[in-house]
Amino acid sequence: MSAALGIFDSGVGGLTVMHAIKQLLPHEHLIYYGDTARVPYGGKSSSTIIRYSLENAKFLLKQQIKLLVVACNTSNALAMQHLQELSNIPIIGVIEPGAEKAAAVTRNQHIAILGTKATIQSGAYQKAIQKLLPESSVSAIACPLFVPIVEEHFFDHPATRLIVQEYLQPLKNQKIDTILLGCTHYPFLKKLIQDEMGPGVMLVDSAATCAEKICRTLLQCNLQASSQKRECTYYVSDDTEKFRLQAERLFGETIPKVLLKKR
Amino acid sequence: MSAALGIFDSGVGGLTVMHAIKQLLPHEHLIYYGDTARVPYGGKSSSTIIRYSLENAKFLLKQQIKLLVVACNTSNALAMQHLQELSNIPIIGVIEPGAEKAAAVTRNQHIAILGTKATIQSGAYQKAIQKLLPESSVSAIACPLFVPIVEEHFFDHPATRLIVQEYLQPLKNQKIDTILLGCTHYPFLKKLIQDEMGPGVMLVDSAATCAEKICRTLLQCNLQASSQKRECTYYVSDDTEKFRLQAERLFGETIPKVLLKKR
Repeated sequence: MSAALGIFDSGVGGLTVMHAIKQLLPHEHLIYYGDTARVPYGGKSSSTIIRYSLENAKFLLKQQIKLLVVACNTSNALAMQHLQELSNIPIIGVIEPGAEKAAAVTRNQHIAILGTKATIQSGAYQKAIQKLLPESSVSAIACPLFVPIVEEHFFDHPATRLIVQEYLQPLKNQKIDTILLGCTHYPFLKKLIQDEMGPGVMLVDSAATCAEKICRTLLQCNLQASSQKRECTYYVSDDTEKFRLQAERLFGETIPKVLLKKR
Repeated sequence: MSAALGIFDSGVGGLTVMHAIKQLLPHEHLIYYGDTARVPYGGKSSSTIIRYSLENAKFLLKQQIKLLVVACNTSNALAMQHLQELSNIPIIGVIEPGAEKAAAVTRNQHIAILGTKATIQSGAYQKAIQKLLPESSVSAIACPLFVPIVEEHFFDHPATRLIVQEYLQPLKNQKIDTILLGCTHYPFLKKLIQDEMGPGVMLVDSAATCAEKICRTLLQCNLQASSQKRECTYYVSDDTEKFRLQAERLFGETIPKVLLKKR
């Protein structure tokens, strides 16, 4: 089985998911597509996010992928149902695996979710968790400045610490024991979030749990690759060089070539 | 003459320019278009910015406007030449009037420009100033976090103060006496920038100077409106309600109706 897994995101953030897949599945071909001409999605309307997500998925489906990964939390939150109508191949998002992990690790059923405005407003994480843990208390906070801060590499800046404090303020005194990082950029702020919430709070990063789910799905559907030399292909809708540099700077990954998706 | 002025921006920021035009020209019909489905432009490539700018201009030109205002600094910096090939009507940007004002108010010819990455990298402001003042020393600083900070209303937040300090650090000890705010969002951070640079530094906001230039151009071309009751029309490419709320929150403007541009 030599077909690839297709992964899309609004930009560079989905590389966290790509990275987790690479580690867990060393023989799978991977095709990544980042919609850098229209990034970010997190503040846009649901109809626009659905339209963009469908266009991204169609581009990957044309390349005969065997499984589609929706690495963008915002797309996952708003467009999953529409994406599932496009094709019969398995489609894996980040929300369901993240919610499962959060539900598994919480001890007191007080869970918080951090995400973009669109993700939080969609209620997708909240619903996924409450389906698994109907008695749980779920707090959801939109953190719109986290993505630009990460893209500016202000990971450990005093200003970032203040912004983290501001956003997480409403979670204090709520007995939260688990925080779900509902955006692929947020793991870069793990340390500051952990510092702010204290060591008793568990942070769940959905990239790793998404990769585990993909692994199980490939096995179940008998779609796993035999021992082939992996190929990774990267497409973007704008500025291949900026993407390459960001990937290198954020993930320490060397990407020899990034292709521009034709319109 | 009842044709309107057409104004476009990547999002809500160009309303600063619209506002200045309204005050100076009370009888002109105005059509505003914000490309909110693809905002922001400031980190995108020049070819994408040119393509988006041409699409925006064509949409306004279809409505028989008599003058086009490029209220987006990034579009102005990258796409002006291409826009001028589209039509014979006057096209006014924000960069040239801003540069003229900065050149007029500086006493020691040490000028700094703040803008998005794309605006700064284009060198458009730098060239415009050095054309007027060949002996001047021009510093240019990209401030990518300012737009998201303004859109989040963190105008006077301690974190914003730290970010302003960080970005302006290279300007200290450079004898700067004039700072050009080369992005329509930045006037919201005027107070913090002034505090950081001290009272001896003059801040130039290009929205007002752009409106003055439009006024002069209408007179020169004999295009000014007679005493009619002004109509203002607002279009966006995404989420009319979010635009309306942002406009209200940022500018205290009541916009009764925002229309969605058909694709």
